[in-house]
Amino acid sequence: MKRALVLGAGMVGTAIAWDLGQDADLALTVADLRPDALEKLRARVDVKTSQLDLSDPARVRAAVEGYDVVLGALSSHLGFATLRAVIEAGRPYVDISFMAEDAWTLSPLAEARGVTAVVDCGVAPGMSNLLAGYAASVLQPCERIDIFVGGLPVIRTRPFEYKAGFAPSDVIEEYVRPARVVENGACVVKDALSEPERLDFERLGTLEAFNTDGLRSLATTLKVPSMREKTLRYPGHAELMRTLRDAGFFSTEPLELGGQRVRPLEVTSALLFPQWTYDPGEADLTVMRVTAEGRREGRRVRLEWDLFDTYDARTDLRSMSRTTGFTAAAMARRVLDGRFGRPGVHPPEVPGQIPGFVDGMLEDLRRRGVSYNAREVVL
Amino acid sequence: MKRALVLGAGMVGTAIAWDLGQDADLALTVADLRPDALEKLRARVDVKTSQLDLSDPARVRAAVEGYDVVLGALSSHLGFATLRAVIEAGRPYVDISFMAEDAWTLSPLAEARGVTAVVDCGVAPGMSNLLAGYAASVLQPCERIDIFVGGLPVIRTRPFEYKAGFAPSDVIEEYVRPARVVENGACVVKDALSEPERLDFERLGTLEAFNTDGLRSLATTLKVPSMREKTLRYPGHAELMRTLRDAGFFSTEPLELGGQRVRPLEVTSALLFPQWTYDPGEADLTVMRVTAEGRREGRRVRLEWDLFDTYDARTDLRSMSRTTGFTAAAMARRVLDGRFGRPGVHPPEVPGQIPGFVDGMLEDLRRRGVSYNAREVVL
Repeated sequence: MKRALVLGAGMVGTAIAWDLGQDADLALTVADLRPDALEKLRARVDVKTSQLDLSDPARVRAAVEGYDVVLGALSSHLGFATLRAVIEAGRPYVDISFMAEDAWTLSPLAEARGVTAVVDCGVAPGMSNLLAGYAASVLQPCERIDIFVGGLPVIRTRPFEYKAGFAPSDVIEEYVRPARVVENGACVVKDALSEPERLDFERLGTLEAFNTDGLRSLATTLKVPSMREKTLRYPGHAELMRTLRDAGFFSTEPLELGGQRVRPLEVTSALLFPQWTYDPGEADLTVMRVTAEGRREGRRVRLEWDLFDTYDARTDLRSMSRTTGFTAAAMARRVLDGRFGRPGVHPPEVPGQIPGFVDGMLEDLRRRGVSYNAREVVL
Repeated sequence: MKRALVLGAGMVGTAIAWDLGQDADLALTVADLRPDALEKLRARVDVKTSQLDLSDPARVRAAVEGYDVVLGALSSHLGFATLRAVIEAGRPYVDISFMAEDAWTLSPLAEARGVTAVVDCGVAPGMSNLLAGYAASVLQPCERIDIFVGGLPVIRTRPFEYKAGFAPSDVIEEYVRPARVVENGACVVKDALSEPERLDFERLGTLEAFNTDGLRSLATTLKVPSMREKTLRYPGHAELMRTLRDAGFFSTEPLELGGQRVRPLEVTSALLFPQWTYDPGEADLTVMRVTAEGRREGRRVRLEWDLFDTYDARTDLRSMSRTTGFTAAAMARRVLDGRFGRPGVHPPEVPGQIPGFVDGMLEDLRRRGVSYNAREVVL
């Protein structure tokens, strides 16, 4: 029997455990420092748990010994150090932890240790990369790739019509950081929140898409002359965020106020936190559209994948956790059984180019209710 | 030769001095604590100046001795104490200083001293009250009075399309304080920023009007069953302000942030101050529409007055200062020569009901380029 270890018992870690917990031939353990998180997890999923200080790389190195695969679902500040610790321990790793650092700098180390690590392996980044890698491999040439993705509350409440599965400051960071896109084969930097456009989605209606810095590895791994990722929100949100940003409410420059130094972003985050936080049992949704244009068997075609997923009341798993965690679980199965075993630190577009790989991933996700609607249009 | 004293050498005080300084038969003095303000004033208007601590009522009482009329153009926190000091000194007073306190509580004192004091004597409150008082006296009955007023920058810059002649927190206070209106003869309280409607203005285009708490004395002095004052802004401003207010950015409740107590409104004010402040020589405008409906000589009619005024580059007087200060100056002339001399503290709708009074005021203002376009429509 193979053994898998999940680092992190948060929302995504719980979804991973729920998914992998159904594999009868897999012995699963979930590690976290927080006893309450572990207790909550055990109440929902029949897994072993282990209390572990994930902020200590030495303990992580020791803890992962003997596992056939390790999955990471950690907060961003722990992502990089944990990735290194798992590689140093020589364990295969599938990670969805966002990290500001550049994971690829650890690829030589992973190659030297013969370790396969797949990072950015959620929904976007994650499935978006797999689909982009697939498209780039079957279209000859692939001319453009567009990714539109958003996580939203089902119930729309003014003025923001938005909630976040995480701290407002992390969302706001995406509204401030310049967005890299690829145009005419070159990396071009645009304002976050710029170039808003309206798109219609089945079962959801009209959303607004705007530039954010989401391409990450795709900007360099794929040789596609036009690529962009845009974030989806209910219409009006971007204009409001642009206003707050341009008026200074997202600034981290301290203001002097009556002898105190105050960062406007901290005040904004504190005000928005309760308004942007999901209530227990509140339904979220994930919407993603990936399109790729190019030539296939002599014809110009557009490949399209549409994802629409919502909170699952039966499992009490939010859509963000489902679409992210189930992708990581599906990837872990493929690392476990050798369907992907290349040493190094890889983004998902690398296995995405393996014939049949994406189809299998989509089938795994479909069995768990996360369905990508694919079609091919002749242009 | 009669003697007049202006308390305050700010923007409105300067406009008053510019106006009264043209009366050859009037000896004019302007008092302020700030030497730089007095120096700047002397460079523009040929008047005597006096350095005076206006925050000290005893000094104010002593300083006003011997003047035939006193005019007040003070910041709000000095308004009430100065009004009392001038009344105690037995001097006639015309005041445009906004005050949170209730000026009418000093009316018995003014009556006892035989002092005539006209307060709220700018544009709105001010001319709006004069016109409302006039309308209530000539329409039998007067059924409704609507006042729409705003001060705006000529150049519209997103996202706010607004600038203020004073601190943002004073404007924001108007966006928070519940708005009292009169409906069916009863005082009704509405949300500030509520009931937005669009109105078209000649030479200006479409503006948005929304409820603010502007009726002040009119709500009780006039027996008109329907009265409201709405603030005018470029369309979109109210929605944005409502969003900021409802999200908590105008709150004065302190947040705990890293051991500091921070009031969101202070952060918001600090961020907005530079964005809402007029540049030197930047053009502002004042727009006001007062309408009154009722019966006159057996017919149902609507009386309408429209004001559109802009910054005057020749005198470098902003429209806000012109429309406010010239009204106070015109009123002061009428207090000086006895056209209005009733003892007590009065809002402008009281002299506004004197036959011929409003026509004379409008003529004085027209000579200074502040033109109210009046018309009567049979309904």
